[in-house]
Amino acid sequence: MEKQHFGKLIVFGVGLIGGSCALALKEKHAVREVVGIGRTRANLDKARQRGLVDRAFTFDDAWEDELRDADIVLLATPVAQIDALLTRILPAVSEKAIISDAGSTKQNVIAVARGCYRAEPRVSLANFVPAHPIAGTEHSGAAAAFATLYENKNVIITPLAETSPECTATISALWQVCGATIHTMSPAQHDTVFAAVSHLPHMLAFALVAELASRPDAGIFFQYAGSGFRDFTRIAASSPEMWRDIAFDNRDALIRELDAFARMLSELRSEIEEKNNTGLMQRLQTASDARRRWAPGSGKPDTN
Amino acid sequence: MEKQHFGKLIVFGVGLIGGSCALALKEKHAVREVVGIGRTRANLDKARQRGLVDRAFTFDDAWEDELRDADIVLLATPVAQIDALLTRILPAVSEKAIISDAGSTKQNVIAVARGCYRAEPRVSLANFVPAHPIAGTEHSGAAAAFATLYENKNVIITPLAETSPECTATISALWQVCGATIHTMSPAQHDTVFAAVSHLPHMLAFALVAELASRPDAGIFFQYAGSGFRDFTRIAASSPEMWRDIAFDNRDALIRELDAFARMLSELRSEIEEKNNTGLMQRLQTASDARRRWAPGSGKPDTN
Repeated sequence: MEKQHFGKLIVFGVGLIGGSCALALKEKHAVREVVGIGRTRANLDKARQRGLVDRAFTFDDAWEDELRDADIVLLATPVAQIDALLTRILPAVSEKAIISDAGSTKQNVIAVARGCYRAEPRVSLANFVPAHPIAGTEHSGAAAAFATLYENKNVIITPLAETSPECTATISALWQVCGATIHTMSPAQHDTVFAAVSHLPHMLAFALVAELASRPDAGIFFQYAGSGFRDFTRIAASSPEMWRDIAFDNRDALIRELDAFARMLSELRSEIEEKNNTGLMQRLQTASDARRRWAPGSGKPDTN
Repeated sequence: MEKQHFGKLIVFGVGLIGGSCALALKEKHAVREVVGIGRTRANLDKARQRGLVDRAFTFDDAWEDELRDADIVLLATPVAQIDALLTRILPAVSEKAIISDAGSTKQNVIAVARGCYRAEPRVSLANFVPAHPIAGTEHSGAAAAFATLYENKNVIITPLAETSPECTATISALWQVCGATIHTMSPAQHDTVFAAVSHLPHMLAFALVAELASRPDAGIFFQYAGSGFRDFTRIAASSPEMWRDIAFDNRDALIRELDAFARMLSELRSEIEEKNNTGLMQRLQTASDARRRWAPGSGKPDTN
């Protein structure tokens, strides 16, 4: 197979997600150059220092000229910024450029993109490829980026009816070069699945830590929290801005998940209150069995 | 300082907690011999094979003779078994033996112990030292035990008014030999703190996984769950029996925590439903800041 080359890449949002993708592609010599466009000069300086990007602009700069010969534009900012950015990007890019994103919600990004493309009929939704790399850590910014972030991770692509198979293939190849496996699903199914397995757990972790932190004697609680608490709440250190955007963007699916969880928790609460031995035992056993069956990357074998 | 020696140790429940303690003490040559008493022959065979214990008996065996010259008895079974065990142990031990436990709840264990000691006035509560080592993994059984489990971990001791300072000092020294740091607090404060930072997170993780597992299309959800889900739900693989016991034993404090959490979650739900930008952002920021300040063992520096 001929080595894939993706030409000139523009990354909006040179943080953990965009920066790690840029770094992986550069290390594989799969791009000619990478231009980073971001919010703060300090983060962009760090990105250049670390070799994530060759040139960098803040959102406020005049970067439109850089877009004219771009082959691929990757939107890796918080989702709420995509509307304003696409409104500036679309008039500036060539008709051949492929535009993709890395947003954790898809229906909302697609609705925004449809609006922007309607306003700029020169470019076509055939070249827009909505995607979501399932990777990340609780750290953010260019300093947190690393080239192997996507190795053995999943990238979900949710093509529109309009998206051309060639553009989907190019974006798939780009993430495969980063080490990821590609899955395709509909935007609605994506948002339902990730509301349950990602957005809900983040909200639960945020809520638990916020509740403890709100107590006058919070210190004593944090002092004795152990390794279970550490892992359970790791994701509560994630970017509040990013997760506020996700919560609002995927509101309906997330609310459904919050309600399903609240019902389950209320049943569990009754079982505890009534000392319903069989009921509670069955519920905990169901969870423990399911978690042990899933268990990817648990590190240690289940030896009991 | 003269090397501490703890003589003959009897461990009831030779699993992750009791087995790791026995192994640490043996590796430090701090005990003369260890007798393990447990529920299943298979687990006890594994414990002997791995050198956790020198001799082993099942609960059903006649092990009373082993107790007559025991120096320390460690109860490391699920808490619900302590009543029946102490009822057999107390008539068999010498007046000098120190009895301690490793239960995750303390007021309930103490209430049970008081009842058992009342029935056996020959032995004294002066020699009973309630304790809780804050360590564990999601794995259980003798096969999961390892000597360094308690290194740099906390052990909480919640002495009774009757407990003699000498016995508290001996049990403190025993856990210190295993590498732990000792903290002392009242049984009530212990149960309040651990309901919040341990028992509640376990119930939330169990509830989340049970909820997903109960869906007809559970497979698709588990298929796309990533590293955030992995860490958040790690504790849901824990022993259902142990956590049922804990939930019932610390019921009142846990119900209070479940209710406080449900209130916080309901506020967060409203902020999402109403797209209350300031409110949600503040709540997520509070959590993220508190988690980053706490952050023990996060491994990576917060670089942003």
